[in-house]
Amino acid sequence: MALIVHKYGGTSMGSTERIRNVAKRVAKWARAGHQMVVVPSAMSGETNRLLGLASELAPSHAKTSYYRELDMLAATGEQASSALLAIALQSEGMESVSYAGWQVPVRTDNSYTKARIESIDDKRVRGDLEAGRVVIVTGFQGIDPDGNITTLGRGGSDTSAVAVAAAMKADECLIYTDVDGVYTTDPRVVPAAKRLGTVSFEEMLEMASLGSKVLQIRSVEFAGKYKVPMRVLSSFTPWDIDLEEEAKSGTLITFEEDEKMEKAVVSGIAFNRGEAKISVLGVPDTPGVAAAILGPVADANIEVDVIIQNISKDGKTDFSFTVSQGDYQRALDLLREKVVPALGATEVVGNPNIAKVSIVGIGMRSHVGVASTMFRTLSKEGVNIQMISTSEIKTSVVIDEKYLELAVRALHTAFGLDKSE
Amino acid sequence: MALIVHKYGGTSMGSTERIRNVAKRVAKWARAGHQMVVVPSAMSGETNRLLGLASELAPSHAKTSYYRELDMLAATGEQASSALLAIALQSEGMESVSYAGWQVPVRTDNSYTKARIESIDDKRVRGDLEAGRVVIVTGFQGIDPDGNITTLGRGGSDTSAVAVAAAMKADECLIYTDVDGVYTTDPRVVPAAKRLGTVSFEEMLEMASLGSKVLQIRSVEFAGKYKVPMRVLSSFTPWDIDLEEEAKSGTLITFEEDEKMEKAVVSGIAFNRGEAKISVLGVPDTPGVAAAILGPVADANIEVDVIIQNISKDGKTDFSFTVSQGDYQRALDLLREKVVPALGATEVVGNPNIAKVSIVGIGMRSHVGVASTMFRTLSKEGVNIQMISTSEIKTSVVIDEKYLELAVRALHTAFGLDKSE
Repeated sequence: MALIVHKYGGTSMGSTERIRNVAKRVAKWARAGHQMVVVPSAMSGETNRLLGLASELAPSHAKTSYYRELDMLAATGEQASSALLAIALQSEGMESVSYAGWQVPVRTDNSYTKARIESIDDKRVRGDLEAGRVVIVTGFQGIDPDGNITTLGRGGSDTSAVAVAAAMKADECLIYTDVDGVYTTDPRVVPAAKRLGTVSFEEMLEMASLGSKVLQIRSVEFAGKYKVPMRVLSSFTPWDIDLEEEAKSGTLITFEEDEKMEKAVVSGIAFNRGEAKISVLGVPDTPGVAAAILGPVADANIEVDVIIQNISKDGKTDFSFTVSQGDYQRALDLLREKVVPALGATEVVGNPNIAKVSIVGIGMRSHVGVASTMFRTLSKEGVNIQMISTSEIKTSVVIDEKYLELAVRALHTAFGLDKSE
Repeated sequence: MALIVHKYGGTSMGSTERIRNVAKRVAKWARAGHQMVVVPSAMSGETNRLLGLASELAPSHAKTSYYRELDMLAATGEQASSALLAIALQSEGMESVSYAGWQVPVRTDNSYTKARIESIDDKRVRGDLEAGRVVIVTGFQGIDPDGNITTLGRGGSDTSAVAVAAAMKADECLIYTDVDGVYTTDPRVVPAAKRLGTVSFEEMLEMASLGSKVLQIRSVEFAGKYKVPMRVLSSFTPWDIDLEEEAKSGTLITFEEDEKMEKAVVSGIAFNRGEAKISVLGVPDTPGVAAAILGPVADANIEVDVIIQNISKDGKTDFSFTVSQGDYQRALDLLREKVVPALGATEVVGNPNIAKVSIVGIGMRSHVGVASTMFRTLSKEGVNIQMISTSEIKTSVVIDEKYLELAVRALHTAFGLDKSE
């Protein structure tokens, strides 16, 4: 008998029919003798519907009090889906009870709409588990020190599930989603992409941050911090497949390094479309120049991804960074109006159509030549590399967006990730 | 400066446009210097939508744990509308905060789906009022001693508003609704019906229990118990009408008996369509016979309204009562199968198409002949009275449903309630 946490996304909870299937699946696990905690998202579309209503009424200058109400509003989506799942489980003959975040309680800070979990009290939930109940805990939400409802931001239910699993010292946290695991790359781009049986949490962290949408990055951070074994698997397999088979399906995110020894050096190819590159040319190479350029950008709420500063020539240097395409023009205007005159830079140039491709693998730590294989592969395909950024377990390159698919496919083959191999 | 509670029904909260109008109206009151607490219902249709989802998933044998989840689910409707109203008020430039029942807290017993309010802590709300905020408190819901969400039953937001007003010692509780006050009778039946400027809470209590749907009966009981001045008024007047005019509109439910001295003996004519009459004939006139007949009926969850037992003849008596038309056949079958054989009664007869008409007036206490005026009026119109039931301030008669409109109109005129008088 194990203590298992299941998390179901909005698509899995999207109709009463689907909720019934979730209940049947959970009941199967409970009947096999496991203690079950389930964290559901809101029914698909519900969070957007609620936030749409709010945006029709929103004040022109949003203050903290507005974000507080947004959380009050959005949290109702998960409360409703949780109650419906408890009802569906009761129909399956299981004792079941649902708790909103504040009832557990899931304590968070007071950063409305993007709160961070501080602690979870496991007493109430444990009491129910010991009484033989399946416990449903609303995803996405908690309560701040003043008793206000908070939410964890989009995708926050993944984090809720992992945090609950950590607090309960669960044996495994299963994230049921609309993909059947973590792939070496997006199968829509590379049909030969393989599902990974296991992936290290550090690799998963890089992949999540590099645009793989399988898991919310904070949930992976949380799993890493508390060493919660976490599995991504499909919610679209029939609910009545063999439990042992289901328990081994999908991708396990693991903390056991030695499992990886026999594995590929590179585990996956992640990529991000829709980026734009901006370069400020001829800036004086003096202390504080990065802050002088990126400070105003951050103040305008523009998120910056890759940042590169070239070596200086004649006391001048070039400074480049990437932003999302939606922020491109605003960032460009800002720099031209405020930063270039203030810094005495030569000019600002940009490219609104670039993409980022990254190879990720924990094996890169101990293998030399991985980056050069990447560069050689892209060169052979005639893909020009515009920027390079590296970390211990990943190498990212910025390239022209039109070469994205070509680059991903070529790298997938070059690193031996194709199914046929 | 006064402390005022406003309550808005689901229709008033039915769209973002309407919520914006509610916010403008509340802001007008707040700008006039009043401390404002607002209790909104869920957006119209929302509670039905949620309970519809639940009924698709409901277990065949509902237990307490099911009703607990229903409350968890239904409570989200008011939480969402309350947050939206707070947002709309912020857009009007007012500081505003919304609280779910558990945040106030509104403490109730644990009778899920029909909980009763036990106490309301006014500390948190008062702190916000003193800080200049408009406070929104979710209607319809509370928290039980174990921290579970409860709801007060259909129309419970009226009761929430009155209870909040009582706890805060508010100067007045204004119930904004889709009618512009309490009428001498339903204007759809008697076009000459007059709006009452004031009505005593005892009369209102009778009218609410006799089928007038203006207010939930428990809210009137609550107002009576705590002497909360309560006003029913229209939410469809333009939000920007003069505040003094608005404050005097609608119908005031009062506790001052002497105000009534100059008033009509009968304040209104209430009626209930859709009733059915059942008579058990020839039952032995022995102790326990009422229990023997009505016990099985109550066990089958059939609500009984008027109950009459005739005088006995030769040790036998006739026992009659009314039920709603929807329960008629079930009650008849039940009596024929179980009660008649057990009691040795002669037979069970019934009429599935009757209606109840009642005259209500606090003046009946001190005026004789009111009931006989009623009977004479009906007789003159050829309406046969099938059953009679009286209380201190009302007289009800059961008649054939087809005479309902005729009877109501004739009584409205006979008691001097027509507008022209």
